[in-house]
Amino acid sequence: MIIHADRIAADIEVIGACSECPVVDGHSRPTFSGAWGKARAYVVGELERAGCVVRVDAAGNLHGRQGGGGWGEKVFLSGSHLDSVPTGGKFDGVVGVAAPLEILRAAHEAGERVGLELVVFAEEEGTTFNLGMLGSRAWVGTLSGEELGGLKNKQGQSYLEAGAAFGVDPARLAGERFDPAGYRGFIEVHVEQGVGLWEANAPVALVTAINGRRQYAVTLTGDANHAGSTKMGHRRDALAAAAEMVGALEVLAHDLDRRQDHTVITVGRLMVEPNALNVIAGRVHFYIDLRARSDAMLSEGDRLIRAEVKRIAHRRRMGWAVEQTEELPAMAMDAALCGRLREAAERLGVVMPEAASGALHDAAILAPFLPTAMLFVASKDGVSHNPGEYSRIEEIAAATSILAEAVRA
Amino acid sequence: MIIHADRIAADIEVIGACSECPVVDGHSRPTFSGAWGKARAYVVGELERAGCVVRVDAAGNLHGRQGGGGWGEKVFLSGSHLDSVPTGGKFDGVVGVAAPLEILRAAHEAGERVGLELVVFAEEEGTTFNLGMLGSRAWVGTLSGEELGGLKNKQGQSYLEAGAAFGVDPARLAGERFDPAGYRGFIEVHVEQGVGLWEANAPVALVTAINGRRQYAVTLTGDANHAGSTKMGHRRDALAAAAEMVGALEVLAHDLDRRQDHTVITVGRLMVEPNALNVIAGRVHFYIDLRARSDAMLSEGDRLIRAEVKRIAHRRRMGWAVEQTEELPAMAMDAALCGRLREAAERLGVVMPEAASGALHDAAILAPFLPTAMLFVASKDGVSHNPGEYSRIEEIAAATSILAEAVRA
Repeated sequence: MIIHADRIAADIEVIGACSECPVVDGHSRPTFSGAWGKARAYVVGELERAGCVVRVDAAGNLHGRQGGGGWGEKVFLSGSHLDSVPTGGKFDGVVGVAAPLEILRAAHEAGERVGLELVVFAEEEGTTFNLGMLGSRAWVGTLSGEELGGLKNKQGQSYLEAGAAFGVDPARLAGERFDPAGYRGFIEVHVEQGVGLWEANAPVALVTAINGRRQYAVTLTGDANHAGSTKMGHRRDALAAAAEMVGALEVLAHDLDRRQDHTVITVGRLMVEPNALNVIAGRVHFYIDLRARSDAMLSEGDRLIRAEVKRIAHRRRMGWAVEQTEELPAMAMDAALCGRLREAAERLGVVMPEAASGALHDAAILAPFLPTAMLFVASKDGVSHNPGEYSRIEEIAAATSILAEAVRA
Repeated sequence: MIIHADRIAADIEVIGACSECPVVDGHSRPTFSGAWGKARAYVVGELERAGCVVRVDAAGNLHGRQGGGGWGEKVFLSGSHLDSVPTGGKFDGVVGVAAPLEILRAAHEAGERVGLELVVFAEEEGTTFNLGMLGSRAWVGTLSGEELGGLKNKQGQSYLEAGAAFGVDPARLAGERFDPAGYRGFIEVHVEQGVGLWEANAPVALVTAINGRRQYAVTLTGDANHAGSTKMGHRRDALAAAAEMVGALEVLAHDLDRRQDHTVITVGRLMVEPNALNVIAGRVHFYIDLRARSDAMLSEGDRLIRAEVKRIAHRRRMGWAVEQTEELPAMAMDAALCGRLREAAERLGVVMPEAASGALHDAAILAPFLPTAMLFVASKDGVSHNPGEYSRIEEIAAATSILAEAVRA
C-alpha cells in the first residue's frame, strides 16, 4: 500500500472547514454540534468509499473497518477525536483520525486486507461538557449512563440528550461495552502539543507514558456591592480573592515543576458574577487543572492546592467550596506494543525518540484495559489549542507509515 | 398635601416586580428591555392619573409635570432612574423616581399646584451599554448621537437602535436639548449605597459633593495553549497576568484610600478567552473603575494604574492595551440649593447631616449646567447593587417631605 500525504492534507482541510466559528478565528467543533456532525459524516463517507463497514456504538463513538471479516475479527484499534476546544487548531485529534483512515484507503486501493479498526471518540477535549474523554470512558465503562446524563453543555443539554441524534443510547451502553478480547491493541497518533520534538527537529516520537490529571471547580462567595460607595476596607471582593488564588497557584506550579519536571497547574476558565464594571464581584467560579508524571506528585499538588485556596479564602472571609471533578492516574504505555512500533520505525529507517505526554488522550482511558501506545507528531513551537497550531504533513505521513507497518507485521 | 409612605412602598414593589430575572435572585432591568419598559409605563400611568402631562425627550428620558402650565413654565426638576444593574436591589434609582411622583400625586389629591417636573433618566447604571448616565449626558449634550450609536448592548444593538421603540431619536436630539433657563434647579433623591447614615442612625443626608470617576478597558494578549503539555516556563498566560494586575490595583487602592479617604479602585468585570478549563488563557479583557473626591487624586490614580498595568504586562511579555472609557470630574453641589434643602429639613424638624457621594449619579451630569443638589436615604449596612439592598420606607418618605417642602417654598 502507498500512504498518500496529499489525501491526509485534504482530510485536515475538509475537517478544518467544519467549524462553528469563522475559520479565520480558528476551529470550533463542540461534540454533537452541527460542525462536529459534518466532520464525522465526512469520515463516514471516506470509510464507505474505501469499502469499510461503519457503526456507531451506544456511547457515540464511530467505528470503521474493512468489510468481509465482520466486527468479531481481532484487529488493532487506532483513532482519536474530531471535537475541538473553542477556536482551536486544525491538527489536534484530526491527525489521529486521518492516519488510520489513510491506511484503510491505501489498503483498499492496493486490494490488501489490513487488521485495523478506525475509531473516532466522542468528546475528548472536555470543553463541551466540562469533562474530557467522555466517549472512551463511557465505552470502557468507567463512566455510567447516569453520569453522562448529569453532564451538561452550554445549551443545558446532557451528553445523552445532545448525543441522541448522533447514536448515543444509554439503554444499549452495557451491551455494547468495549471488549478487550476483540482487539490486539490500541495505537493513537496525536500532535505533541509541546516544543520537545520541534526543538529536537525530530518528526515522530514514541510516547511511553501519559501524565495524570486532577481537576477542581472552585466557588468563592463575597458581597456584591457598589463599586463607588463601598470603601476598600468594607469589601469582600470575590474577584480580588480569586486573583490572589490564581497568583498563588502559579507560584506553587513553578515550585512543583522544579521538584518534578512537567508538573503544571492552570486556571483557564473563570466566571465573575454579576460581572458588571461598577459592581464589586459577589461570586467567582473558576477551574483548576493539575497534571504530573507521577501519582505521588498529583497527591502532593492536590494537598497544596487545597491548602492555598483555604488559606486565602479564610484570610479574606470568603464563602468557598472546592469540588474535585476529575482524577486520572499517570499511565505507562504497553511495553510490547511500544516495541512493535519501535521495530516498525526501524524497518522504515525513521529515527524515533521517546517522549511522555503532558496532555491527556483517549489512550490513557484505554490503557488500563488493552495494550496501548501512542505516536507523537512534532508541533510547531509547541503551540496547540490555538489557531496557530501546525504540524508538517510529511511528518504526519511518516507517523501514518509507522502505524501501517506496525499493524501489518 | 399629605405624603403617603404606603404609596411610595407600592411604587417600589410594583417597579421591583418588573424584572428580567426571577425576583428571588434580585432585580434586572436593563435599559430598553421589556422589564424596563413595563416599569416606565407604570410611572406614566401614575403621572396621568395625577393629572400630569407626559413626554419623552429625544434622548429617551421621561418627563412629567402638572398640566395647565405648559412645558415652558420654570419649575424644579427631580428624578432619577429605573434601570438596574444585573440582579440589583429594589431601591437604587427607584426611590428617586417615587419621591417626586408621590409629590405630584399628593398635590393633585390636595388640588394644589406644585412647580415640579419628574424626570426618569434612561441608562444610569452603565451596565447595559458599558457607560453610565447616558440619558442625562445625551440630554445636556455632553454625548452626541454619533457616540450613542457606537455604544452597544449584549444583543449588539446600539443605544439608538435599542432605544428607538422607547422614544430615542437622534434627529431631534439637538432641538430637544436641555435648556437650563427652563428650570430652577435639579434635586435627586437616592439611597446612600454606603454605611455612613445607617451606622450614624440618621435617616436622610444632604449631599454636598459627588466623587469623580475614571474607567478603563484593559486587554491582555498572551498565548492560548494546551494546559497539559505547555510547561510553566513556556507560558504567556493572560489570566495569570490579569490576576496579578487585579491584586496590584487592590494594594494601590488601599494605599490611595489612606492618602485620601473614600478613594476606591474596582475590577468588577473580567472575561477570559477561550475560557476553557484545559486551555491557557490567550486573552483577558477587564475593566477598572477609579473614584476619588478630588481631581488631583483622580489624576494620581490614573498615573499609578497605568504604571502598574504596564509594569506587569512588560515583565510577563504580554500584548496589552489600556483604553480610558470614562472621565468625570469630582463635582460640588450648589450651595444655594443645598441651603434651601437644609432650611426645608429644619422647618420639618428633621436633623440632616452632610455627606459626599462615592457613587456617581445623574446629578453629577446636570451639576455643571444647573444648580444641583442631592438627598441621601440611609442604606441598610451600606449594601447596594445587590438583592439585599434595603432602605426604610418611612425614611424615604421623610426625604420626600423635605423635597416637597423645598420646592414649595
